Amino acid sequence: MASSQEEVTLLGAIGSPYVCRVKIAFKFKGVEYKYVEENLANKSEQLLKYNPVHKKVPVIVHNDKPLAESLVIVEYIDETWTHNPILPSDPYQRAMARFWSKFIDDKIVGAAWKAVFTADEKEREKNVGEALEALQFLENEIKDKKFFAGEEIGLVDIAGVFIAFWVPMIQEISGLEILTSEKFPNLYKWSQEFVNHPVVKESLPPRDPVFAFFKGLFENVTASK
Amino acid sequence: MASSQEEVTLLGAIGSPYVCRVKIAFKFKGVEYKYVEENLANKSEQLLKYNPVHKKVPVIVHNDKPLAESLVIVEYIDETWTHNPILPSDPYQRAMARFWSKFIDDKIVGAAWKAVFTADEKEREKNVGEALEALQFLENEIKDKKFFAGEEIGLVDIAGVFIAFWVPMIQEISGLEILTSEKFPNLYKWSQEFVNHPVVKESLPPRDPVFAFFKGLFENVTASK
Repeated sequence: MASSQEEVTLLGAIGSPYVCRVKIAFKFKGVEYKYVEENLANKSEQLLKYNPVHKKVPVIVHNDKPLAESLVIVEYIDETWTHNPILPSDPYQRAMARFWSKFIDDKIVGAAWKAVFTADEKEREKNVGEALEALQFLENEIKDKKFFAGEEIGLVDIAGVFIAFWVPMIQEISGLEILTSEKFPNLYKWSQEFVNHPVVKESLPPRDPVFAFFKGLFENVTASK
Repeated sequence: MASSQEEVTLLGAIGSPYVCRVKIAFKFKGVEYKYVEENLANKSEQLLKYNPVHKKVPVIVHNDKPLAESLVIVEYIDETWTHNPILPSDPYQRAMARFWSKFIDDKIVGAAWKAVFTADEKEREKNVGEALEALQFLENEIKDKKFFAGEEIGLVDIAGVFIAFWVPMIQEISGLEILTSEKFPNLYKWSQEFVNHPVVKESLPPRDPVFAFFKGLFENVTASK
C-alpha cells in the first residue's frame, strides 16, 4: 500500500479510455492520487514537461518521476503496489496478457474509432470489418470465463475498457453495430460484468458529458462529408 | 538455464529486425533453440497455427506453448530464464525500458521504413522528418552511456537493433541520411558498440543477402514511380 509520504499525480482527460485504464488500476490497488484534468486543446506546461515525447494523457508522476503510456503505467502500478495483482505470476500467462492488451491497442481501438469518426463510407466499412474480425479473436479468447484471466479482473480487462464502455457509446451515437450480444455473446456478457464490477464502475467517467462530447464530434465529422 | 528437456523453437525470417530481437535475447541467455526459416510469401501451416492472429514472425514455441510479438517474447524470455537480466529490477527503470522500446516501434521503425520504401517524394520527406525527430529523443536519452540501461545491453538496445543494423543498410541503399555521426553522435556511437557486442554480432543476419533483398525491394518500389 502506498505510504502517506508518497505523492502520486495523474494527468488525465475525462473522455479518454487510456486514462480510464490507469484510474481502474489505481482503484484496484487502493492507491490515492491527485487528479489533474488536462485541456487537450490547450495543454498545460506540466503535461509538456512530463510527456515531451507524446504530449498525451495519461501521465502519472510518482515521487517526482513521470511516466506515460497507459499499459506501461498499469504494469508499473502493478509492480510498485504488489497487492491485488493485475498481471498473473506465471511468465507465459503474463506474456499472453501483454499480447492481448497490445492486440486491443493495435487492432481494435483504432479500427473502431475510425469506423465511427469518418465521413467516408468505404473507410467506415473497411474499419468496421477490421474491428469485427479483431473482436472475434477476443470472443474466442474469453469463452465462458468471467474475466480474461479468470475470476478477477486483470490487464486484458483493463486494456479492454474501451470495448466495454466506449464502444457501446460510440455505436449508439453512430448507429453502427460493433459489439452486440448477437454477434459476440461471450464478449458482450464480459463487457456487462466488467462495467458493473465495483472497482470499474467507480472509475468510469460520467456517461452524459462524454456521450455529448463524442456525439458532437460525430456530427461534426459526418456533416463535413 | 533451460534444461535439456525443454523444447524451444523459433519461427523466423532472415531479414526481420523483429526476429533478430528474439535471437539476441536467446543468445544473451544462452538458450538453445531450433530455428525454422519461414517463407513469408508462402507461410507454413505451423506459422498460421501458432500465430493465427497476426500470421507474422517471430513466433516462439516453448514446450508446445506458442507466443508472438517480439517485445512480448523478449520479456517472456527474461522472465523464464532469469539469469543475465534484460530488464532492470527497479519498477521505474523497467517501465522506462518498456516506454522507450514501444517508442522505437511506434515512432521509428515505421517512419524509417516508409521514408525509404516509397516512390512518393512528399511521403518520403514527411517520414524522414518524423524519423529524425524521434531519433533526437533517443540521442538525448542515451547521452554518453554505453548502452541505454548502462554498461550491459538491455531491452531498449535489443528493441533498437533496427536502428543499429537495418537503418545504416537501408540508408546506404536509398542514399538518405538518417542515422549519421554528425546528426546523432551519441546514438551513432551506441549503434557501433551495439552491433560489435559479441552477443549481438553472432545474432545478426549475414549482411550481403539481406542487403541484396532490400536493394531489390527499393529498386522495385522506386521504379514504380
